[in-house]
Amino acid sequence: MKIGIAQINSNIGDFPRNAKRIMQAYRACVDAGAEIVVTPEMSLVGYPPRDLVTKERFVSKCLQALDYLADETGDVPLIVGYVDFHDFIQPGRPLRNAAAFLHQGGVRQKIWKTLLPSYDMFDEHKYFEPSSECKAFNFGGRRIGLTIGEDIWLEDYIRRPIYQRDPIAELKDDGADLIINISASPFHTGMPKHRASLLEVVACGANAPLVCCNAVGMNEQLVFDGNSLVLDADGNEISNLPGFISCFKVVDITERGSEAPSMRSIDVEDVHKGLILGIQDYAQKAGFGAVTMILDGNVESSLVASLAVRALGAEQVKVLVIPDETQAVESVCRAIQLVEKLGIEHTNISVDVVKQSADLVLGEILTDLDHPLVDQGITSRVRAMLLMAYARNNNYLVLSSANKSDLSIGHQFIGGDSSLGLAVLSDVPKIIVHKLANFTNSEKELIPKALIEREEEASKNSHKYGNETVPPYVLIDLILELYVNYQLSCDEIIKGHGYDENTVRWVQRKVDLNEWKRQQAAPGIRVTSRAFGMCRRMPTVQGFID
Amino acid sequence: MKIGIAQINSNIGDFPRNAKRIMQAYRACVDAGAEIVVTPEMSLVGYPPRDLVTKERFVSKCLQALDYLADETGDVPLIVGYVDFHDFIQPGRPLRNAAAFLHQGGVRQKIWKTLLPSYDMFDEHKYFEPSSECKAFNFGGRRIGLTIGEDIWLEDYIRRPIYQRDPIAELKDDGADLIINISASPFHTGMPKHRASLLEVVACGANAPLVCCNAVGMNEQLVFDGNSLVLDADGNEISNLPGFISCFKVVDITERGSEAPSMRSIDVEDVHKGLILGIQDYAQKAGFGAVTMILDGNVESSLVASLAVRALGAEQVKVLVIPDETQAVESVCRAIQLVEKLGIEHTNISVDVVKQSADLVLGEILTDLDHPLVDQGITSRVRAMLLMAYARNNNYLVLSSANKSDLSIGHQFIGGDSSLGLAVLSDVPKIIVHKLANFTNSEKELIPKALIEREEEASKNSHKYGNETVPPYVLIDLILELYVNYQLSCDEIIKGHGYDENTVRWVQRKVDLNEWKRQQAAPGIRVTSRAFGMCRRMPTVQGFID
Repeated sequence: MKIGIAQINSNIGDFPRNAKRIMQAYRACVDAGAEIVVTPEMSLVGYPPRDLVTKERFVSKCLQALDYLADETGDVPLIVGYVDFHDFIQPGRPLRNAAAFLHQGGVRQKIWKTLLPSYDMFDEHKYFEPSSECKAFNFGGRRIGLTIGEDIWLEDYIRRPIYQRDPIAELKDDGADLIINISASPFHTGMPKHRASLLEVVACGANAPLVCCNAVGMNEQLVFDGNSLVLDADGNEISNLPGFISCFKVVDITERGSEAPSMRSIDVEDVHKGLILGIQDYAQKAGFGAVTMILDGNVESSLVASLAVRALGAEQVKVLVIPDETQAVESVCRAIQLVEKLGIEHTNISVDVVKQSADLVLGEILTDLDHPLVDQGITSRVRAMLLMAYARNNNYLVLSSANKSDLSIGHQFIGGDSSLGLAVLSDVPKIIVHKLANFTNSEKELIPKALIEREEEASKNSHKYGNETVPPYVLIDLILELYVNYQLSCDEIIKGHGYDENTVRWVQRKVDLNEWKRQQAAPGIRVTSRAFGMCRRMPTVQGFID
Repeated sequence: MKIGIAQINSNIGDFPRNAKRIMQAYRACVDAGAEIVVTPEMSLVGYPPRDLVTKERFVSKCLQALDYLADETGDVPLIVGYVDFHDFIQPGRPLRNAAAFLHQGGVRQKIWKTLLPSYDMFDEHKYFEPSSECKAFNFGGRRIGLTIGEDIWLEDYIRRPIYQRDPIAELKDDGADLIINISASPFHTGMPKHRASLLEVVACGANAPLVCCNAVGMNEQLVFDGNSLVLDADGNEISNLPGFISCFKVVDITERGSEAPSMRSIDVEDVHKGLILGIQDYAQKAGFGAVTMILDGNVESSLVASLAVRALGAEQVKVLVIPDETQAVESVCRAIQLVEKLGIEHTNISVDVVKQSADLVLGEILTDLDHPLVDQGITSRVRAMLLMAYARNNNYLVLSSANKSDLSIGHQFIGGDSSLGLAVLSDVPKIIVHKLANFTNSEKELIPKALIEREEEASKNSHKYGNETVPPYVLIDLILELYVNYQLSCDEIIKGHGYDENTVRWVQRKVDLNEWKRQQAAPGIRVTSRAFGMCRRMPTVQGFID
């Protein structure tokens, strides 16, 4: 049996466009010999639709679009992810996270998602009622167990037992001999490999071929990486689809797989691809043709400009060249060199005049204008003000290049570097910034190697921020990973991992006290297991000393 | 039986402080003759703790604090709301939203919340496992049914049937002859009356006296209004506690109530109190002694300054007087008059020099510097930049006075008026701003009546924003209430309510397209049924045309 796997990039709520993309992929798969075509979870809706689903008419429009798709479906069935009403009379959540099996002009099967993730960035229990039983159905001589996202996530693969159901076991009991999973499983570093290993275990456990069709694209700060997989009943890989690309493939599931799923652990390359897809999708879905940003010759802004060019093409990237905070002439030279290498349009401006006039006004009312943070704050906000005026004037999307390490410890300014359109690196720690910069150079040296090396060296030493001495970034990043991503306590980090107590406590307090800044920061692109914002919802003001 | 009701104001995660407050209230109630003392839902934790509860050590610290309270409890029992572990082996959510009945040095009963709200701003299903059965317990000749928050919320009082359990019915079956409800039920206009009417129905249905102890204070943009109530078995009011004040009262539940609960519908006064409590609590819990803001003589900034003085005292309010956007001398005069009436410290500054220098720099790179939105954006950001430097220099909390109507339609600037510390009016529509201004004047004319009247008149007419003509605020506010608060579709608003189609569609598109701005806006104080942010989580970028 040949299955067409269409890893679609859906826009949240844009039913006409999503239906069109599904139909295009469906026809292409049929032409290529598919006997069933599969699209991702919520392919018709775009995941995550959040509170939009609480509008009844949103769901009604979705069902209209589903009927249209059913009408267009011929002898080859089409599996679509969508949102349905639960029941207007029975108690329970009002909606279903649903999959439809469309065939010969009609909706033949409707399947409800059973396990509804409600942790990290997931909120599904807020909206959806789980299925009460999992049943397989017959088609083409097979008995198909159709599952949605989390339904196949075994408890060993999430952190602790949450669920009291096991959909795969229920489907196996019901005789399923083919498991299809449609998913919208977001990317973070290590996720493609982790997911592949889960799928292997699921296929073996079900003793049936497994088709997983995963979404692609960025919605709501989440990047979906595709990487759809087809495994045989022994968990061996029959075929895979590429990461970070919307595409389709027709795979014969009766073939035997040759080996274990071979998702490589290529984190930097994956993050690079994820960020490019993120910029591309955010700009396109938000309706911007071009982007703008400040290029000051440092590694972060050089990296963001390079990524933007990869995402949108050189003609769509317009930069303001402004010297960095040390006002070094050298930084402008580096920026200009990069502009030339990338072939992008640039405008030179200086913040000096505006900064001096602000100092003049503030000199009369401030007791300590020389406080370095007051001074840096003014510079950062003047830069942002000029950039936003430029962006508004030309209808460009603004990109910011502040990194996750600085966002974590609050070394950003609201209304300044943290308040811009899309914060490309807001989930990329400083150390990964350097790795990405080196990766960006792999074809051609865009960002001076000497600069990256200097920054790598610098990140091993402490530096000044305001009047404070900040621990080395290499240390901050390691502690942040333990504290934020793995949620360890200070005690565990100090005693279990041997870090210096003062440094650990310093990082922890900075992280906790700056939640209010992060909650006003620009949206970013999630690439780690725990991005701020959607994936970590801490109170802004609280008294817990961790 | 005399019950001490202590409507406490808890800080999220500050266990030592919360435990101390609980113990102070407990002792005061005992001294006043209480035979049981009740505190609100999560009184030991502070509601909502959000993802903090996902840290195991957070829960462990909470349990330590609970043990301390148990040790301190004598012959008079104490009911405390807290967070507990569920079970490390059984599947299910890891935690419980819990109530403990402490007596003579020990924890005698532990009750788990059964109905876990997961709509609007509530997320409880993400964290907590519901109780599997509701049991009453004996004390002092009574059989007590102890419930938490949502457990008593009958389906007629939430919008649709969600739950498959009825805790009150279960407790009644188990012989409960006294219902105690500890809650953290947040305020919005109309809520105190709505809640009182629910409590009346619950008491009648249970045919038992009902004690509801509700939290007070602001946490995470939510104001808890107290207004605790004690009703007899016929739903008549025996006693009530005041709104928006942390206090306690000892009430004899064997008394007969005299009449139906008489919560008045005094929305403007309630909103006024809620905003004052919000400013007070936010500043205090975030550790700021004083606040600063821009006073430009318009109604909004005058109102916020007046509220801040009520909240914190005149000495804690330091304003920058800057002329309004029309640069009217009159506006400065009004601001100075208010400063004198309120007795607050002020500093005059002008944005002209900085604005002119920004225009100079931008004049060279912008094609259309005269675009009014570019121009206003620069002014707004220069104001914010100066204010933030002033605030930083003095360690003041920044208050913003932008209203909900403008926030709804995107008429605010990121990095400008929308990016400040606490957005006092971000959930107050323009029309309510006028009502609050009049209310503020009830003792003494602080804000010139003539100004308020002029603004009220102006809000009946359309005005210009940028190059666009904006519908009258009175109309915008009515449509916003239907579209945002009641979630009606444009069609329903046009056909069902008779509003002009163009205006309705204009408002709807503005609301939908500006979600990205709101998601970067400063936190506010929720006073309507549907505040942006926590209560309405729409995707930032989406394609649904409502």
